[in-house]
Amino acid sequence: MGPDYGTADAAATIGLAMTSQAEIEAFVGEQFPQTRCTIQAVGKLTATVRHTIGAEDLRPGGTVRGGIMMEVADVALYIAILGEIGIVPLTVTTSLNINFLRKPAASRAIIGVCRLLKVGRALVIGEVALYSEGSEQMVAHAVGTYSIPPKR
Amino acid sequence: MGPDYGTADAAATIGLAMTSQAEIEAFVGEQFPQTRCTIQAVGKLTATVRHTIGAEDLRPGGTVRGGIMMEVADVALYIAILGEIGIVPLTVTTSLNINFLRKPAASRAIIGVCRLLKVGRALVIGEVALYSEGSEQMVAHAVGTYSIPPKR
Amino acid sequence: MGPDYGTADAAATIGLAMTSQAEIEAFVGEQFPQTRCTIQAVGKLTATVRHTIGAEDLRPGGTVRGGIMMEVADVALYIAILGEIGIVPLTVTTSLNINFLRKPAASRAIIGVCRLLKVGRALVIGEVALYSEGSEQMVAHAVGTYSIPPKR
Amino acid sequence: MGPDYGTADAAATIGLAMTSQAEIEAFVGEQFPQTRCTIQAVGKLTATVRHTIGAEDLRPGGTVRGGIMMEVADVALYIAILGEIGIVPLTVTTSLNINFLRKPAASRAIIGVCRLLKVGRALVIGEVALYSEGSEQMVAHAVGTYSIPPKR
Repeated sequence: MGPDYGTADAAATIGLAMTSQAEIEAFVGEQFPQTRCTIQAVGKLTATVRHTIGAEDLRPGGTVRGGIMMEVADVALYIAILGEIGIVPLTVTTSLNINFLRKPAASRAIIGVCRLLKVGRALVIGEVALYSEGSEQMVAHAVGTYSIPPKR
Repeated sequence: MGPDYGTADAAATIGLAMTSQAEIEAFVGEQFPQTRCTIQAVGKLTATVRHTIGAEDLRPGGTVRGGIMMEVADVALYIAILGEIGIVPLTVTTSLNINFLRKPAASRAIIGVCRLLKVGRALVIGEVALYSEGSEQMVAHAVGTYSIPPKR
Repeated sequence: MGPDYGTADAAATIGLAMTSQAEIEAFVGEQFPQTRCTIQAVGKLTATVRHTIGAEDLRPGGTVRGGIMMEVADVALYIAILGEIGIVPLTVTTSLNINFLRKPAASRAIIGVCRLLKVGRALVIGEVALYSEGSEQMVAHAVGTYSIPPKR
Repeated sequence: MGPDYGTADAAATIGLAMTSQAEIEAFVGEQFPQTRCTIQAVGKLTATVRHTIGAEDLRPGGTVRGGIMMEVADVALYIAILGEIGIVPLTVTTSLNINFLRKPAASRAIIGVCRLLKVGRALVIGEVALYSEGSEQMVAHAVGTYSIPPKR
């Protein structure tokens, strides 16, 4: 990844390849060894992540804790952004808005599907649809903003 | 579960005491044994919670993961609501909006201070200010909505 | 409109027709004579509205005021909901979250395309994509929640 | 206001006076002649604005349209920011999240009280409490983000 990957504008202009899923996995595995999200796909402005669900992730009512779904949304956005702008570790969440729509299944993984809505020089905005694995009914919907650090 | 405390309206009308911090701690300890938040205070429309921070809670840049702060915001709201309406386990988050303002200290606990803005029959809305322990600078600000199940 | 239209669940169960665009237009014209939004389409869980833009709708920088886009988002949600649950005038917005993505054209109408994400008994949640007419680039994205009054 | 007013950091460092209410009023009157918000106060990180309510601002149920409250929130943020960073016309809203809490009075002005939570170089975040004039019960609560253009 060359020195010009820092913004999507640069990437768009000079036709750089997006960051590969393997590169992102290596980075995430090294920097966030505790994460339980795995990457299922990274594409043009999109990413899909998966978070297994165990007993420790449940709350009263036999459903998944909201915090888990917020984390999946946040990670899905992060992966989609890294896929687009390259490995920029100090890219940080500036805001996240999540609506919980339906009770997720207690026994299934949570899948987060992110679509970036805008990749600007300083801010990236995307939405994430969350599902219980194997179901087509959205269990939550999130919109988040990440800030990209200025190039040095 | 007593018959009369189930809604804030009932509580307001007949002057019931709010749920005590000890009752809430017992409930949370039983239902959410994995939580790392402790309750510091529960008052009229307010609650303060604390989450210790360890190496596993950090992200690149030496700061606290966003997911931790979202969880603190969510728990602070939940505790404040239980304090107001009683132990209603199926009270669930319907939405959360969080803005990250400043980089939290890597070596300090996160403190969440919740203030409820409205306690209705079906929906409760509150805001949470998040701090690194010992600092007066807000590191994040959240607004969340919880749904209260109808009384049977 | 018969007595059973009140919830989407009822509508789904007994197969009631959705409210027609003409019925909604008549209602909106009578109740909100000052609105400058017109309805372009109402479909299953969707609605499209259009707001003309004049000089009074612009702000410095030659772009559309944010308030106009918030109004289009709010109206698009309202129309989609009326299309789904029938003419329930006291259906009111409980929250709206909007992200402004790109500068809209000063000389074009704003188009709002709503898709409902969940139609529950008490709450409806939907998202709205906003465009400058004739362009495929989203200028803003909103997520809103409406509360449906209980049936009397 | 000299050439260095462009960021809050600069203002904080070199101790520039905040923009005066009169300067802001002159700017707003010239640039937004159609606005119906008046400025009641501008202070350190705060602003209070007022929007008269007439028949054209009401919706079914005898209450104020949500769009009016969104506009008051947006304007209150804008005024507070101009008070802090100076007259920077291209400062634009990037996101707004609003929760509607109680039915505002149909016959009273809406008052918006803004408090800025963070004034950064590129982003400003603040919250706005909305009231019916003369009442202490919050009718809505908003959190918004503005983007400040880079200095040329």
